[in-house]
Amino acid sequence: MSQLRIAVLGVGMMGADHVARITSKITGARVTVVNDYITEKAEQIAEAVPGCRAVTDPLDAIADPDVDAIVLATPGPTHEKQLLACLEHGKPVMCEKPLTTDVVTSLEVVKREAELGKKLIQVGFMRRFDHEYEQLKALIQSGELGRPLVVHCAHRNPAVPPGFDSSMIVKDSLVHEVDVTRFLLDEEIASVQIIKPSANPAAPAGLQDPQIAIFETVSGRHIDVEVFVTTGVAYEVRTEVVGERGSAMIGLDVGLIRKAAPGRWGGQITPSFKERFSQAYDSEIQRWVNAVKAGAEKDNYIDGPGAWDGYAAAAVCAAGVRSLETGQVAEVEMVARDSIAGA
Amino acid sequence: MSQLRIAVLGVGMMGADHVARITSKITGARVTVVNDYITEKAEQIAEAVPGCRAVTDPLDAIADPDVDAIVLATPGPTHEKQLLACLEHGKPVMCEKPLTTDVVTSLEVVKREAELGKKLIQVGFMRRFDHEYEQLKALIQSGELGRPLVVHCAHRNPAVPPGFDSSMIVKDSLVHEVDVTRFLLDEEIASVQIIKPSANPAAPAGLQDPQIAIFETVSGRHIDVEVFVTTGVAYEVRTEVVGERGSAMIGLDVGLIRKAAPGRWGGQITPSFKERFSQAYDSEIQRWVNAVKAGAEKDNYIDGPGAWDGYAAAAVCAAGVRSLETGQVAEVEMVARDSIAGA
Amino acid sequence: MSQLRIAVLGVGMMGADHVARITSKITGARVTVVNDYITEKAEQIAEAVPGCRAVTDPLDAIADPDVDAIVLATPGPTHEKQLLACLEHGKPVMCEKPLTTDVVTSLEVVKREAELGKKLIQVGFMRRFDHEYEQLKALIQSGELGRPLVVHCAHRNPAVPPGFDSSMIVKDSLVHEVDVTRFLLDEEIASVQIIKPSANPAAPAGLQDPQIAIFETVSGRHIDVEVFVTTGVAYEVRTEVVGERGSAMIGLDVGLIRKAAPGRWGGQITPSFKERFSQAYDSEIQRWVNAVKAGAEKDNYIDGPGAWDGYAAAAVCAAGVRSLETGQVAEVEMVARDSIAGA
Amino acid sequence: MSQLRIAVLGVGMMGADHVARITSKITGARVTVVNDYITEKAEQIAEAVPGCRAVTDPLDAIADPDVDAIVLATPGPTHEKQLLACLEHGKPVMCEKPLTTDVVTSLEVVKREAELGKKLIQVGFMRRFDHEYEQLKALIQSGELGRPLVVHCAHRNPAVPPGFDSSMIVKDSLVHEVDVTRFLLDEEIASVQIIKPSANPAAPAGLQDPQIAIFETVSGRHIDVEVFVTTGVAYEVRTEVVGERGSAMIGLDVGLIRKAAPGRWGGQITPSFKERFSQAYDSEIQRWVNAVKAGAEKDNYIDGPGAWDGYAAAAVCAAGVRSLETGQVAEVEMVARDSIAGA
Repeated sequence: MSQLRIAVLGVGMMGADHVARITSKITGARVTVVNDYITEKAEQIAEAVPGCRAVTDPLDAIADPDVDAIVLATPGPTHEKQLLACLEHGKPVMCEKPLTTDVVTSLEVVKREAELGKKLIQVGFMRRFDHEYEQLKALIQSGELGRPLVVHCAHRNPAVPPGFDSSMIVKDSLVHEVDVTRFLLDEEIASVQIIKPSANPAAPAGLQDPQIAIFETVSGRHIDVEVFVTTGVAYEVRTEVVGERGSAMIGLDVGLIRKAAPGRWGGQITPSFKERFSQAYDSEIQRWVNAVKAGAEKDNYIDGPGAWDGYAAAAVCAAGVRSLETGQVAEVEMVARDSIAGA
Repeated sequence: MSQLRIAVLGVGMMGADHVARITSKITGARVTVVNDYITEKAEQIAEAVPGCRAVTDPLDAIADPDVDAIVLATPGPTHEKQLLACLEHGKPVMCEKPLTTDVVTSLEVVKREAELGKKLIQVGFMRRFDHEYEQLKALIQSGELGRPLVVHCAHRNPAVPPGFDSSMIVKDSLVHEVDVTRFLLDEEIASVQIIKPSANPAAPAGLQDPQIAIFETVSGRHIDVEVFVTTGVAYEVRTEVVGERGSAMIGLDVGLIRKAAPGRWGGQITPSFKERFSQAYDSEIQRWVNAVKAGAEKDNYIDGPGAWDGYAAAAVCAAGVRSLETGQVAEVEMVARDSIAGA
Repeated sequence: MSQLRIAVLGVGMMGADHVARITSKITGARVTVVNDYITEKAEQIAEAVPGCRAVTDPLDAIADPDVDAIVLATPGPTHEKQLLACLEHGKPVMCEKPLTTDVVTSLEVVKREAELGKKLIQVGFMRRFDHEYEQLKALIQSGELGRPLVVHCAHRNPAVPPGFDSSMIVKDSLVHEVDVTRFLLDEEIASVQIIKPSANPAAPAGLQDPQIAIFETVSGRHIDVEVFVTTGVAYEVRTEVVGERGSAMIGLDVGLIRKAAPGRWGGQITPSFKERFSQAYDSEIQRWVNAVKAGAEKDNYIDGPGAWDGYAAAAVCAAGVRSLETGQVAEVEMVARDSIAGA
Repeated sequence: MSQLRIAVLGVGMMGADHVARITSKITGARVTVVNDYITEKAEQIAEAVPGCRAVTDPLDAIADPDVDAIVLATPGPTHEKQLLACLEHGKPVMCEKPLTTDVVTSLEVVKREAELGKKLIQVGFMRRFDHEYEQLKALIQSGELGRPLVVHCAHRNPAVPPGFDSSMIVKDSLVHEVDVTRFLLDEEIASVQIIKPSANPAAPAGLQDPQIAIFETVSGRHIDVEVFVTTGVAYEVRTEVVGERGSAMIGLDVGLIRKAAPGRWGGQITPSFKERFSQAYDSEIQRWVNAVKAGAEKDNYIDGPGAWDGYAAAAVCAAGVRSLETGQVAEVEMVARDSIAGA
């Protein structure tokens, strides 16, 4: 299979983002079908993606022979039916949270997939893929902190859309900490307590915000979460794990910070240029590929430093080598750029 | 052009990295031809990439009708000839530094490209694509720091390969700060002074390490660079720009830190989940695409949280909503995972 | 009153520290009387302090006409009687926590002092004097964060002495956060919940550690505190205040960090050398005073840079001024230090 | 000697600060004599300090039998004569920088003190007493960084007084880095180079600001210093030491940060409450002593938490212990504060 052919169901903010992502950043896949209950939106997006068409019925999209896999970004209440259709057609599906909108139907989906004997459904808890969470998980697994005993989380949003109610803070916001806790501790949560402090006066009337959630895991570990979705300031997600032999925190805008024996706090130094500039290399090549493809328009096939920059660097380094040899200040010898038309 | 067909010339560490990058991370492009002066290496890499073949002569690779663009990762002394061949065939080329190994041939390449009237050559100064350098450049351009007056840089490597000599510290290491300075200040460097402090006893005999480079720009601005390539500790690249109205530093492992009026130091808070988890979304989808493609082998089409995780989250959130309503601790009600074979 | 004459009652670790502090760091006061239920300990300490004597009965010490004020560092169960004696004699007393060991006797002390119409009793909640807590309080009072809604605290000790039990975690450790909360929020606490997670296996048998305390204030604000006294790692006290318009944290080993509009995180830059080096000036002068007093012993009346250092600085600066004028490297011209015997 | 009797010569900003410091913060010393070439200023300050008088001639002040030691804060040009007078009378002197205003007279002072065979002169390089510099020095001495090879410094002021000229940047500002370098490296400086970048347009006309100083030590180590005294932003003093096996930086507003094997960056965790709250304990007791001395005025002998705060803490902790025992939320039981007049 050279290019995975994907149908994106639901092209609201989240789904449209996925279409753009698959089209411009993800290798080995392309979007061949899009669907939305607002037909025009789907058609508009399909037009912008080469080889993509809009399909009216989501179940048709799932069944479409041009579709190898599905990204499900439709409203939660439609998930159950669509997931079952994916299972029926044996098609892999990446399902944005929630799996379904209630426990009974979620369990039903789990059972149907289990009966098939294939793992076809992935759920969009994207924090597990965040580098900081990955590092925190790896640190826990390394045993350096000892067994985790307590987890503290903060989840702050500047604002929420109109209509966001108190239970949505639990189901749409806190749900990420539910998954993060289960991911980091590898254990189920046994009980939940929601504490309702006096509310932020800037929150919409009737919205209980902030909320404090207390989880206890099956083995008795403690997690607390502040969810505060009308801070007015910024998006902030923080998680601290306190273990028997040290603690570590992510989300302070400074990477993973650990406090552990022998009495040091701090982070990991980047070991080499590969880790330090990995993102830079990826961006450099992706932007160059894009520039080359669009180059004929303007006779410009680059998006970054050009030949002149290579020449200038050579001239400066030559002066540097002369200074290294003589111990004196060395003048940089270069032609004037405007002496070469087109340079 | 659906997929840009790329020839990678030179598949040492750098070139092999580019082959892997283009194949597994970059969308819209694939490697169709590889070349190396060690034929077996090229053949070995070609075999691992679908639709890719090894070509013995780099000039044949450039001329190959299956090649739209070239990545040049061959040794520096061969660059001039290969770059001129690229220009002759009108093919875009991404050239790893250096452009060529001396000023005269570099200028020759600049002139030949200028005569063509097309920007075909990009040079691999990848730091310009690093998010921290991009932020620093944007901060300078915003004017918040005023005009930059002074730049301090540190460039530290844990170790260098055998045979690395004092002038290579200038041409291979310091060259990055040459480009960074020109990029950030948008100005040419007028003179260079290399200061040679007493050397690190751990450095190979004869290697002048560390070196301190002093640049003066055409308009009289000052840059100093510590290059220290045998620190034994870690890779560390730091740049501080001191302007008329404030300063900013990157490379402290804590993002961009600015110090500016009114007397505050600090960084920018992430504005929303899109910026915070952009990398996570990309990784999530790319890894899912890869998992789906490989899924038939093990009947496992996921690489991340599955349906059970969606069910567990639903169960915990349901308990959360009950607690929100009752003010009491709510037990999480879930079936045992092992009661469902295959879940 | 030129020198306040202080009796220190109880010279265990805490009391002995206070004797040393008053003797070597505090101006305007001296210790004239010490007392301890272990007579030898009091006598030993008295001998080391000029003009100080040991007194056997704490009530005699309080009544002593050579005593203007009392520092109470005796065991908690004796506080009530000693505090009442201080009130009876109209003598100011600095009482280490707890005021008394129960609510009823504490209230009795409050009433007796109120009847006197004089504020004579201060309680040793020293965190209110810590610069970070002072800054946090000032930030709250400035209104920049809006009204505080939530406070998160962590209070971690590496270890506790033998015999430390679960209720002592509340009364001896958590009590600091009780005071800090009341200090920062200027409001009483209405209810307390202690959550008991599964305990640290390294904690002594029977000790519930860590403990999570949840406070609700009279107006409904939420505070949570992790108290964890057997971390094995380090002492760590952290407090974060989350307000309507921003948050601020202390105790990260990096000073006060605020997150507030317009989307910035960070700290305050030191405005001038007076704030930056205030501690250095104090230490410099105190150590010099001590050195002068002890100088005759070794004909050495300094504890810091001497005349040679002043000369060397002059020589280097003279070279600096020459370089400033000539633009060249200037050699530093100095005589050899060993050419001057005794320099 | 119970109280060292000090004459402060020169009561401009610096000298007046020293008078206040000795009077209100330093134990074991008091100011008995002040002198200034502006007689009224000296008299005004003398009046405010119990037991202190103004003396017109600085040499009389030095000779005064009521004076055990001298703090010299007069203008630099008078230092030589006054220092020699101190030596003549065998009186210890704490001399604000510079020792004298030129190399020849500085050397003369060194020789005269050496002939006496007593160390009587200390120079006011106060940075050696700053906790961060002390930690950096201790870290170097511990050997953890290996031998220091390179030192980078930044010295930034928001503004300078009128009349501050280019050579004063060397002699009054840079001189601190001269001393810091000698202190940290324990070695003399052999040469100085001042680099003059294009100046800050906000600097007064004719002032070369910023300046870059390059020092080479006798053994060939490299130091660079950016001195920039018209930043407009804040006071900032930063020093980084790069050694054979790691580096460490102070002055980032986050304490000492080291980067060393095995690839970690970070700081030292505070080991216990003694270190963490040492400053708080000192402030608590000093402020309490001051309050007790001033107490009779308002029948208030405290400056900090009072008996009510002790009672409130007891009530909250009692509720905490009940919750610990019952596992339930416990209400805090307290009388209303206004039910006790005067509480």
